[in-house]
Amino acid sequence: MRGTAADVLARADALGAISEEDGRLTRRLATPALARAGDLVSGWMEDAGLVVRRDAIGNVIGRTGDADVPPLVLGSHLDTVPDAGRYDGALGVLLAIAVVDRLAAPPPIPLEVVAFADEEGVRFGVPYLGSAAYSGRFEPEWLDLVDADGITLRVAIERAGADPALLLEVLEPGLACYVEAHIEQGPVLEREGLPVGVVSAIAGQTRAALTIIGRPGHAGISPMSGRHDALAAASELVLAVERFARESEGLVATVGSLTVSPGASNVIPGEAHLSLDVRHADDGALGQAVAGLRHTATRIATARSVELDWSILRATPAVELAPELRLRLASAVLAEGHEARSLASGAGHDAVILSGVCPAAMLFVRCAGGVSHDPRESVAEADVAVALDVLERFVVGEGRTGPAPTGSSRL
Amino acid sequence: MRGTAADVLARADALGAISEEDGRLTRRLATPALARAGDLVSGWMEDAGLVVRRDAIGNVIGRTGDADVPPLVLGSHLDTVPDAGRYDGALGVLLAIAVVDRLAAPPPIPLEVVAFADEEGVRFGVPYLGSAAYSGRFEPEWLDLVDADGITLRVAIERAGADPALLLEVLEPGLACYVEAHIEQGPVLEREGLPVGVVSAIAGQTRAALTIIGRPGHAGISPMSGRHDALAAASELVLAVERFARESEGLVATVGSLTVSPGASNVIPGEAHLSLDVRHADDGALGQAVAGLRHTATRIATARSVELDWSILRATPAVELAPELRLRLASAVLAEGHEARSLASGAGHDAVILSGVCPAAMLFVRCAGGVSHDPRESVAEADVAVALDVLERFVVGEGRTGPAPTGSSRL
Repeated sequence: MRGTAADVLARADALGAISEEDGRLTRRLATPALARAGDLVSGWMEDAGLVVRRDAIGNVIGRTGDADVPPLVLGSHLDTVPDAGRYDGALGVLLAIAVVDRLAAPPPIPLEVVAFADEEGVRFGVPYLGSAAYSGRFEPEWLDLVDADGITLRVAIERAGADPALLLEVLEPGLACYVEAHIEQGPVLEREGLPVGVVSAIAGQTRAALTIIGRPGHAGISPMSGRHDALAAASELVLAVERFARESEGLVATVGSLTVSPGASNVIPGEAHLSLDVRHADDGALGQAVAGLRHTATRIATARSVELDWSILRATPAVELAPELRLRLASAVLAEGHEARSLASGAGHDAVILSGVCPAAMLFVRCAGGVSHDPRESVAEADVAVALDVLERFVVGEGRTGPAPTGSSRL
Repeated sequence: MRGTAADVLARADALGAISEEDGRLTRRLATPALARAGDLVSGWMEDAGLVVRRDAIGNVIGRTGDADVPPLVLGSHLDTVPDAGRYDGALGVLLAIAVVDRLAAPPPIPLEVVAFADEEGVRFGVPYLGSAAYSGRFEPEWLDLVDADGITLRVAIERAGADPALLLEVLEPGLACYVEAHIEQGPVLEREGLPVGVVSAIAGQTRAALTIIGRPGHAGISPMSGRHDALAAASELVLAVERFARESEGLVATVGSLTVSPGASNVIPGEAHLSLDVRHADDGALGQAVAGLRHTATRIATARSVELDWSILRATPAVELAPELRLRLASAVLAEGHEARSLASGAGHDAVILSGVCPAAMLFVRCAGGVSHDPRESVAEADVAVALDVLERFVVGEGRTGPAPTGSSRL
């Protein structure tokens, strides 16, 4: 039955079966799999009575209500990491559609439900391309980003049948506010026995692409002493990143991707390409950490006489979510009979971008073991039901003009 | 003009232009590029008067003389590493053909010229597949080897239009002897001002494939302390291999290939796959080193609570080349007016396999800076001319029945 937690979970299963790969869930920007997922979501939006459009980057947008009034936006993303779970992103999109399904009357204020085409940034290394395009914050140089197959974002969009030039013409939309539901991806709610929580802030994040250029050579001939092995230098850097983050309170730093060239077992690696992802809830600490890691990388490269190229792909400052909106969301949680736990997010979310153009808030849903970015991602039907009730109450409440309800909360 | 050093170099340029990739030379087993290179070589063999056949793995074999008499085999390989130079392998094939081009009369003994389809082992991780197939030493389980795209050797051979079952029917051929010319890939001849040298022995080599299985997770959420990062474990191993080899006299050890899964910038690596290449001229020292590295790898995996799979792809013992044949080759060098320098090879060669079925010898040709497995590989025309003179004299001399010439040499 539409609008139930069971239906949300069944739809998550259906979406989770749409992948670029057999046997595991991977859905990156501008792929046929993402387009098929968008088609499915588009149909569900239409069933809920929304008028659906799709923009040039592939965001699926369903709208209802007076077109001249700034809408309340509900949404999340449809893209995934490689070998992903079914709920990261998809759950927020499906909850938003289910809330519209539930509304007995036309919604009290205009609603827009958005399924963003790129939040993870897997294909082009830059996250939030979907919400940036929706928010009129798409930067022209991103069209020249290149994926692992050498395809530019411009060409990927053209191959998906859209016009990349349109991305540069989007103006900042007039939005009332943005609310995103998402699995917690952490252990707090599970530990405290709570179905949902209200997000206070999203950690800042810096992504960099590092290239190390050494000198290739024959593995059987070149004496160890004269080598300039790019992989050995990269390995030293990977361990330095790990050590640095372990020693810095509140910092996480990850080298998630490393490729070696030429990559033959009997050739000394000549080049290594690494990704670096650094996060901290405090912008000052994040900036210091990135500077420290860059210093360390330079020292390693100098000691090994290899070249280092360090380029920042994206630096997102920490974002505090809108206090007034958080309070109203917490009130809805309380009214549904649950403690309104406030918690920070270590992961980035589309709300980071939306908070630049309107007040934004997030509702976290408990997930088993805090596991995410993994096929074992799991949420309980009862928790999904609570999230639905909270979101419905919030949306209906937003239509009223009275003061926001108050209540004891830990916001 | 055929049979000259200039022609050999021009042919090396032509072969070097045949690649799987634009802009760099890569020619792996059972690829269309290797087939096209084989076609070119086949034509040159026919021009030299050889009767040409191609076996199931793609070796190109040109024959002349009485089919019932064991032939003198000259050859080397046509496959390359990624981003290779033009001479590693190709030079030996082209010198062999040029020697046949030069022979005024029918050769004094039956000759077979072979261009092996796989020596580097890049595509399937196991080297010498070409010479093993030619020598009747092809092992049935190799048909199940899988390349980076998940294609088995069996399927790759079928797609190349051949019947893999034929590889298992090849008997050990009756061969008089095998002589291979090859660039030195090292600095000795250049340092001593010599155009050519006679190879005494080929270092033993062990190739292993290592898999590390950790636990993937979200880069922004997972605290540093609870991670089981497969890439961090792999990095520790890469540095341990480097340190171990630096501290062991005569040992070289290389991790040339490393891939990470899932390989997204915001996901902690769950799996890492590494190649390991270890070489030493002394088999005892090599065995000890491999055992020591395995112990180190196990220790690292245990400390990080990650799984380690260690599988030996190939262990080739050190090979002493045939003393009598080396002496005759050295005599030819002396007769051409050059010092007959004897030197060991750190790199593996097809002669390792051929020495299992007949006496084998190798002639090294000086190469600039000792550089190989690199587009900057270079040989001097004058040195190629010396190699041609030596090989021609050797082949003609082999036709005589008298005793091998003697002379002062450092063999």
